[in-house]
Formats: sequence, C-alpha cells, structure tokens
Amino acid sequence: MNIRFYNARIITMEEPIKVIEGELWVQGNTIIYVGDGLDQEKVFKENNFEPVIWDREIDCKGNVLMPGFKDAHTHSAMTLMRSYADDMPLQDWLNKQIFPIEAKMDYDDVYQLTKLAVLEYLTSGITGVMEMYLDPYAIQDAFNDCGMRNVQVSGINKFGPSLEELEKRIQVLNGKNELSSFMMGFHAEYTCSKELLQDISALAHKYQAPVFMHNSETALEVKECVERYGVTPTVIFDQLGIFDYGGGGYHCVHMSETDYQIMKKRNLIAVTNPASNLKLASGICPISEFLKKEIPVAIGTDGPASNNCLDMFREMFLVTGLAKYRDNDASSVDALDVLKMATVNGAKAMGWSDCETLSVGSKADIIMIDLNQPNMQPIHNIPKNIVYAGSKQNVKMTMINGKILYEDGQFHIGVSPKDVYEECEKISKRLYEES
Amino acid sequence: MNIRFYNARIITMEEPIKVIEGELWVQGNTIIYVGDGLDQEKVFKENNFEPVIWDREIDCKGNVLMPGFKDAHTHSAMTLMRSYADDMPLQDWLNKQIFPIEAKMDYDDVYQLTKLAVLEYLTSGITGVMEMYLDPYAIQDAFNDCGMRNVQVSGINKFGPSLEELEKRIQVLNGKNELSSFMMGFHAEYTCSKELLQDISALAHKYQAPVFMHNSETALEVKECVERYGVTPTVIFDQLGIFDYGGGGYHCVHMSETDYQIMKKRNLIAVTNPASNLKLASGICPISEFLKKEIPVAIGTDGPASNNCLDMFREMFLVTGLAKYRDNDASSVDALDVLKMATVNGAKAMGWSDCETLSVGSKADIIMIDLNQPNMQPIHNIPKNIVYAGSKQNVKMTMINGKILYEDGQFHIGVSPKDVYEECEKISKRLYEES
Repeated sequence: MNIRFYNARIITMEEPIKVIEGELWVQGNTIIYVGDGLDQEKVFKENNFEPVIWDREIDCKGNVLMPGFKDAHTHSAMTLMRSYADDMPLQDWLNKQIFPIEAKMDYDDVYQLTKLAVLEYLTSGITGVMEMYLDPYAIQDAFNDCGMRNVQVSGINKFGPSLEELEKRIQVLNGKNELSSFMMGFHAEYTCSKELLQDISALAHKYQAPVFMHNSETALEVKECVERYGVTPTVIFDQLGIFDYGGGGYHCVHMSETDYQIMKKRNLIAVTNPASNLKLASGICPISEFLKKEIPVAIGTDGPASNNCLDMFREMFLVTGLAKYRDNDASSVDALDVLKMATVNGAKAMGWSDCETLSVGSKADIIMIDLNQPNMQPIHNIPKNIVYAGSKQNVKMTMINGKILYEDGQFHIGVSPKDVYEECEKISKRLYEES
Repeated sequence: MNIRFYNARIITMEEPIKVIEGELWVQGNTIIYVGDGLDQEKVFKENNFEPVIWDREIDCKGNVLMPGFKDAHTHSAMTLMRSYADDMPLQDWLNKQIFPIEAKMDYDDVYQLTKLAVLEYLTSGITGVMEMYLDPYAIQDAFNDCGMRNVQVSGINKFGPSLEELEKRIQVLNGKNELSSFMMGFHAEYTCSKELLQDISALAHKYQAPVFMHNSETALEVKECVERYGVTPTVIFDQLGIFDYGGGGYHCVHMSETDYQIMKKRNLIAVTNPASNLKLASGICPISEFLKKEIPVAIGTDGPASNNCLDMFREMFLVTGLAKYRDNDASSVDALDVLKMATVNGAKAMGWSDCETLSVGSKADIIMIDLNQPNMQPIHNIPKNIVYAGSKQNVKMTMINGKILYEDGQFHIGVSPKDVYEECEKISKRLYEES
C-alpha cells in the first residue's frame, strides 16, 4: 500500500524535537517523504522517487502523526491473570498466583492470550514490544499473525528452558520473519543459580549479544542478592561479564552509585515500569538520576497481571509525575524527555535503528493522535498535551510496518476481537477451574 | 424520555457491592427499576408503576451500568491553562502563571472554557462536579446549558469577592435550576486573613452550612500556617468554628493526628487529587490513614492546569497505586474502596443523597462501561478491571439526569464540540497575546 497523509502535524522525534505541519508518505513498509508536500512532482523528481499512485490519501485534519510507542518490557499473555492476582506482595504474587497457573499454559493458550494483548497495544498506539514470556514460538506466531513488531527476550531461569533450547531459540526465532527477533536475556538474579548466570554470560560472549533481565525491582531482591554474593544484582551481572555486549535492566528501582556507574560504562538502558512498581509496592524508579548520568531510559508497561493494563499514556504520566514527587521538584523530567523515552529510547533498547523516528527510510510504524478531543484542547503545547493529558481515546490510528492495524476504533489484524475475547474467556475458565 | 436498558451487568454501588445481571429502567430523570426485568407487566403491577412506553430500549450487550463518577474537586475553566503552566512549583505556578491570566477572564471566557471541560468530563464518565472558580454565574450557565450536574463552592479569598457578593451568590445560585447548587467555601488559609476566616465562619453559622477549602496541599502551606497561628490549617479552621456544620478539605496531603481527629469529629470529607499532587510535587495523600480512621475520601481531578486532564480513571489508579507505594503494602486500598470514593463518597461530599447509587428513586446519572474492549478482557473481576485497567476509551455512554449526553463518542449537549474548541482557541490566543 502507498499512503499519503496530508494536513498533518508531524512530530518526527528527530532532534531538536518540534511539530511541523505537512505531509508524510508511506510506500510499502517505509517512510519515503516528510515535508510540506506542496509540489508532489517536484519532490518526486528531486528525491529521485518513482511517482507512486496512492492507494489511500488520508486527510489528517490537523491531527498529529508521530512514531508509535515502544513498550520496552511486557509479558503479553499475562492477560490471563488480569484482575486475578491483585493486592499482594511481589514474591507471594509470583510464587502463589503466577507460577502455578503458568505451568498449565500450552501453545494455544499463549497464542490467543498474546493476541488479546496485541489488540490492547494497538488501542494505546504501541507499535513494538519487548516481550519476555513462556513459549516463544507461540508468541512469535501470534505477533506475526497480527502484524505486531516485537523482540522477544529469553526469560531463562532455574526452572527452564535448557541452555540448548535457549540457543536453538536464538537460531530459529531470529530472521524467521521481518517483524520478529529474539534476544539474550534471563528472568532475574533471584531465579538463577550462579552457574546458570555464568552459562548465560558465556552464551552472550559467543553471540556478542546484549542481555536484558529484571533487575533491582524490589528492595528485598537487592538485599537477598547482597546476602548471597556481597554485591548488588547489577554488580554481580557485570562481574560475570553478562553486560560485556550491553543490554539493560527492567525496573531498576533500587540502584546504588556503583550500579549507575556500571550502567553508564556498559551503555546499558534502564527500562522503567512505573504502574507495576506502584501496584506491587516495589518503589519509584530514580528517573532523574538516570537522566543526570546520561543513562537512557525506556518505558514498559510490564504484564497485565501486575499493571493491569497495557497503556503507554498512563505510564508516560507516571514517569514524569512520580519523578516530580520523588525529586520534590515540579520541574523534573519534562514532557519531551518522556516522549523520547516512550519512542526513540524504546526502539534503541530493542535494537531497531530504523524505527526510532519518522525519517525518510525508516519503517512506517506511525500513530495518529486525535487532537479533536476535549482533553487535547486548546492546542498550545502538543507534546505536553500528549504526555500530561493524553489517553487511549486519542489514538485514531496505529500503523505498523506500513499496515494500518487499528483505525477509528476498528481492528484490522485478520481476526475479529470478539473471537479473541471468546477464546481467552474459555482459556481463563479452563485454567482456573482446573486449579 | 423513558429508557429501558437490558442485557446489562449492573453495579448499583449499594452495599454489599456486587455485579448483578439484568435491566435498569429510567423514567424522565429517575431510576424506576433495577432487577431481572423478566416480566415487565408483573413488575409494573407489583411496583405500582404506570406502564411506560419506552422511547428507547438499549441492548447493553453485557456491558456495565454504574453510577457516574463524581469529580469532587475541579476548576473547570482552567482548561485555558492546559499545558501553559507546567513544570514549576505550586506557589510560583499560582502567582506567576495562574493569577495574572485569571484576572483577564470575562463571563464569556469562563462560560466557553467551562463547556470545554464538560465535554471532557463526559468522555470520562463524570456526571457531577464540585467546582470552585471565578465567575459562578458564567459557570452555572455553562453547566446548565450542557446539562451537567454541579455544585459550586465559593472560592472567596482576600482578593475577592466581597462577603455581600458571596451571600448574594448563595441566595441567587441555589435553586435557580435543578442541576446546580452553590455551597460555602473559601480558597485556602494562605489566601485569607484571619478576619475573613472569622467572617466566613459567621456566614457558615448563619446558613448552617458545610464549608470546603483547599487544605494542607503542600508542606510549605502547613509550615507557614503554623508560623502564623501556631497550629495547622485544619486546627485553625476548627478553632474558628468553620467546621461546625461539616464540610471537608481538598488535597489533605500533609495531615497531623490532631487534623485527623478533627476531621473524624466534624464528619468531614477528604477530597484527594493524586495526579495534581504528583505533578506539582505536593506529596501523596494518606488514603489508608483516612480509611483506618473511617474518614470518608472522595476523588477530584483538580483543574486541567495542574493535572492536566479531567480523567477519573487516571485518578482512580493513582489513588490505589500511590497508597500501595506509600504504605509499602501491595494490598492497601482495594478496588472496591476506590470505586466507592469515585461515586458514592463524591455524591456525599456534594450533598446529593439521590445520586449516590443506582437505586429506585435515585436520579438517573448513569454510565455504561464497554467491556468489549481488550483492556477489560477476560471478564473476571469487573471492579478491579475498571479501577486497575479502565480508561476513557471504555466509556460508552454518559447519562445525566436521564439525558444521554455522550454516547459512542458523540456529544449531545446542544453545541458541536468543534465550535467549543474554536471558541476556546480564540480565547486562549486573545488572553495570552494580550499578556
């Protein structure tokens, strides 16, 4: 499909971040033009384009086009546990509510429950996710069948899978299709033995791969790690060589000065999950510290069992609101910083250099933000409006890889939402009745 | 209009709170029936109803009907300052950005900017607001013309209005129309002299009226009050007799044990504004303390200059999320408590005994929550789904006083949203260019 967007306000997210008025053209899965679009023939000629015939010309009516949000930490199929396991501490929540029910999930369950999450990502303008969950084959099939860009991160831990299986996944699940990739990672320090961490490090060296994991989410996790190894999780990972090819951590709530130094030195990315950290009483991520030390921050929703929704607008407001509270400074972490975390930095974490901004040659992962809604009026400072006042209701369109998957409340992912809801309801009934 | 809702899941919010499946009937502005609706004729007869002819019969398709949310603290026309005055401390924000521009607003400005807020309330399922702002005549006209239920609270302070004008407002603006009322109140301790506080107390005694005000929003406010009077704002208000007929406070972030005792003794209501308190770095309201001491809590958005949106879903998540963080306890303040704050307790604060629940004889202030959206699936625990995962996108209908003012994204308030946006854009340009 060749699509011309016109009458748009465009935030490309290229530095310096600004709002331009004009047009954006998509050919297949690629952005081929961003500009005033006043003279199409001239632009075709000057830029050496083949004149394209537009399959659609979309009047944006002054609405915003911007890069889709990148959800840099999630467990999609935990849609199963939404509202099933609330109001309990993290360790109880994992051991008593989450792990037992996860043990029963099969390929079809994970496939359908992941599709349910995709529907939700699309409503929130999320065009790419960094996933960590069970059954990566089912997950990749679900994302791929829906057209959702994704990178899976291995969540290996002492309960599985084997190192051989992990290596097989790295080989099989990379390059199988253009929307999906598979990265090195493990669940967390507290679910891995030292030997396993050493084996993971060896594998990271073999593939020269960045590594991601849950890191320093709770004070208890850090305390127990210090009791075990005499150092924090970040330090033991670094000592074992796990960060030799970069990567980063999910949560990163309870950080020491040494931890920051390691993150800076190894070019690591901190992925913050503010709603989950509040709901599980884990704490508040030190966003301003990361910014001061020039450690990039990306944003994740975490899974729907701990959040309980997959909504980048809620996360964006929390990132800045909680930083202002934590720093006791209403000027901490401004809206542009947050927008960058939710788009560019997420893409960086996922290794997608061609999905960071709306620039010529980049993949067409684009959302349209509806300004013709009361919460976006008056139209004064659009980035502030989006970060401080935006909501899912403002997502008018979500395009991934040049395909419009969500527009005006309708989904175009090859299956009806109703069918997905019914399948997931059946799975939920079956798994919980069995338990 | 006589409207029959069927195939509904109904949360009446009557204790014990539960979800019932059935029908809800509205005659004019009143709920006349809630039940299984299996035999209409029988129900008509048994309940001594006049058989009504339905103007509309609405298939709810399993979606939720519940009482509309009550926004118990807002400054609607501050839509003007949305994204104009962010990222600065409260006192600077008030003195440098807010007060100067407010001084220029006239009747028409306040009228249009309040209408813009009404559009936003409707998208978030808010059916009643407790308002405090300039030009109460313009505000009441705007709310009334839109069909929005409202109670205005006087925001008198040392800059105005006069006590005579306040008394006139109490007399003129009460009973002028059925959707509106006007209550005693003042801005805050730090904007009133002791003499003015004494005069307000005298007026409260004359009308035997409850009194509301901003109270203990920031640590600085409490500190300066203690320096001035030797006691906290709550204590000085009580000493002056301001609470002799009840009322409550907005924000209530920095509270002492004595403050709690006064609130309990005087049957006061604490109105929490979590998003505003984060964004202005004011602090976290001690919700669990209020609950433990059985002091009722209601929820307000505060104005769109400090929040910056009017979204009860964001506030509800913050109420419980921040309580869990503050208490370091993931089981603090469960979803049912929050739903009660956002509905029943808000109505109590506003003095609307006939708007608390969906019970026979109550006013038809009803919202429909769309469960056929991915963030509400699977349908296991509906109150938790709404509080932890709900969003504006789930508001399928907002009815106030028996009239559907918002349905499937369309507004029915007698004016097109586009016209309101254009008017407010003009006002914004004029006032800021003048400044």
